[in-house]
Amino acid sequence: MSTINRTVRLTSRPVGEPTRQNFTFADEPVAPLREGEMLLKVHYLSLDPAMRGWMREGKSYIEPVALGDVMRAGGIGEVMESNQGKFSPGDFLVGMTNVQSWCVTDGRGFTKVDPKLAPLTTYLNVLGMPGMTAYFGLLESGQPKAGETVLVSGAAGAVGATVGQVARILGCRVVGIAGGAEKCAIAVQQYHFDACVDYKAGNLRKDLREACPNGVDVYFDNVGGEILDLALTMINRKARIVICGAISQYNATGEIKGPANYLSLLVNRARMEGIVVFDYAPRYKEGAMQMGQWLKEGKMVSREHVVDGIDNFVESLGKLFTGENMGKLVLKVA
Amino acid sequence: MSTINRTVRLTSRPVGEPTRQNFTFADEPVAPLREGEMLLKVHYLSLDPAMRGWMREGKSYIEPVALGDVMRAGGIGEVMESNQGKFSPGDFLVGMTNVQSWCVTDGRGFTKVDPKLAPLTTYLNVLGMPGMTAYFGLLESGQPKAGETVLVSGAAGAVGATVGQVARILGCRVVGIAGGAEKCAIAVQQYHFDACVDYKAGNLRKDLREACPNGVDVYFDNVGGEILDLALTMINRKARIVICGAISQYNATGEIKGPANYLSLLVNRARMEGIVVFDYAPRYKEGAMQMGQWLKEGKMVSREHVVDGIDNFVESLGKLFTGENMGKLVLKVA
Repeated sequence: MSTINRTVRLTSRPVGEPTRQNFTFADEPVAPLREGEMLLKVHYLSLDPAMRGWMREGKSYIEPVALGDVMRAGGIGEVMESNQGKFSPGDFLVGMTNVQSWCVTDGRGFTKVDPKLAPLTTYLNVLGMPGMTAYFGLLESGQPKAGETVLVSGAAGAVGATVGQVARILGCRVVGIAGGAEKCAIAVQQYHFDACVDYKAGNLRKDLREACPNGVDVYFDNVGGEILDLALTMINRKARIVICGAISQYNATGEIKGPANYLSLLVNRARMEGIVVFDYAPRYKEGAMQMGQWLKEGKMVSREHVVDGIDNFVESLGKLFTGENMGKLVLKVA
Repeated sequence: MSTINRTVRLTSRPVGEPTRQNFTFADEPVAPLREGEMLLKVHYLSLDPAMRGWMREGKSYIEPVALGDVMRAGGIGEVMESNQGKFSPGDFLVGMTNVQSWCVTDGRGFTKVDPKLAPLTTYLNVLGMPGMTAYFGLLESGQPKAGETVLVSGAAGAVGATVGQVARILGCRVVGIAGGAEKCAIAVQQYHFDACVDYKAGNLRKDLREACPNGVDVYFDNVGGEILDLALTMINRKARIVICGAISQYNATGEIKGPANYLSLLVNRARMEGIVVFDYAPRYKEGAMQMGQWLKEGKMVSREHVVDGIDNFVESLGKLFTGENMGKLVLKVA
């Protein structure tokens, strides 16, 4: 009896928000393993804003997903069979499992994780890509100094929550921006932001000025659009803006809204820099050890929002763009 | 008989392009010098895009010119009388003389220049603010390396021409953008750009791609608007964009056009940084010595476009925005 793999293939490129029509769901038999391959049972998939970019044709920091291919995704799998020496049955691995219930791989790009040290989903959050993005993006590009004000958008999201926690540990005043009172409360109570401003409350400009009485030294931007433009009006001299994402613009069908206030960079001798987490791959271990230490010491929390079922992939991903998720969005597969 | 000072005072804030109606021209008697003061005869005034910003109300990197004040301008004056010890009659000084024919000052911010070492107008160009802006902006923020491609807008303007020359001396491939065939020819023939693309010729995208076959590592932006947006599509990984000015936007009465392609910073892990020349004041001497050396060796040229008569101040300044000037625009006063 062969293993049946539930696959989600990208079969057309979304215009605007991705819909089920852009994907094909199928049950496919898993071919017998060849030499050097192993079979992973996929437990969890990471749902990330960046996935919207991977569906888009054209040059980016990574090749787009080809039409007909299984949709790209990071995930956690358990080794069930192995025809290679590096990993053994029972090992849990994190890597690009893609959106399917079983994954055959030669193991390249996969790393073993220890489910005894942390819950599996933590390896998709604080100990995974979002955590590394937050840690290296903030430290290397944001270069925060103790006492400075760090402003973070998407403060209740996977990257934003961790940026805020790291900045707080480093002794900065940390102000978040999130959508809705519940997310703002989580940012302050669970992630220990000094303040979090609800952009849906209608007084963003005034509320932000009150929350940042000394201006903004580092702005870590996950959202783009109007919020980036507003942040530009609040930066201090020699401020650093880290461009990590622009979720407000990812489903845009028209022209992206550029930051009209970019000349604030000139007035303030400030800089705006883009970061991509993959550049820090040689240092992931260093980042994960530091984050693991902070988790152990209780200085940091990793909160995941788990949704169930691979067949709900498209609707679940959509939560990122409507802002329904509370914490790192993870899809439970197995 | 008292000396009569021809003054140009800012008496209303321009909306769009500055006009004569925004200024008051007058003949005013010069009061007798007090202790510590000296009297300068103004020979030349520097006309700069930044002056448009100084006329605008509101926070910037420098206080706006107050209504009723003599319009701010850098210039070169000759000491005619001195009630202080630092400078003597016959000395030529560069500093903020403002838009007037005579300047009474305590000498703060003024520096003595030697008319035997270089023509006076050179001290308003390569050896002055535009030169220092180009030198420190390119080196400190642009950080060009030999063999890289440096793209410069406003290539026939005061700052752009010097950026290109410095980059060339450093061993970069230098590509300019300028308006019209004559300016492009000057950039290539006199400033030794490797190529210069005419943005008025109608094929900017295609022409730029041909001129930059290896993409763009440093983009030095003096113009903003569509050209900045286009440059963003051409940058290489880890590129540096230096925001020095945005002359295309200075007379805008509506919203500034933000760079819609700013997410290219993310894809390319690139950065965009604003610079203000005043930050390098402690190092002007170092910059001027290097530039002076290059001028002496014939590696660099300083080309000024001199227009005559303080009463033509407004129309002359306007040439910067229509792009009529060929080289650093200077107003001859004395």
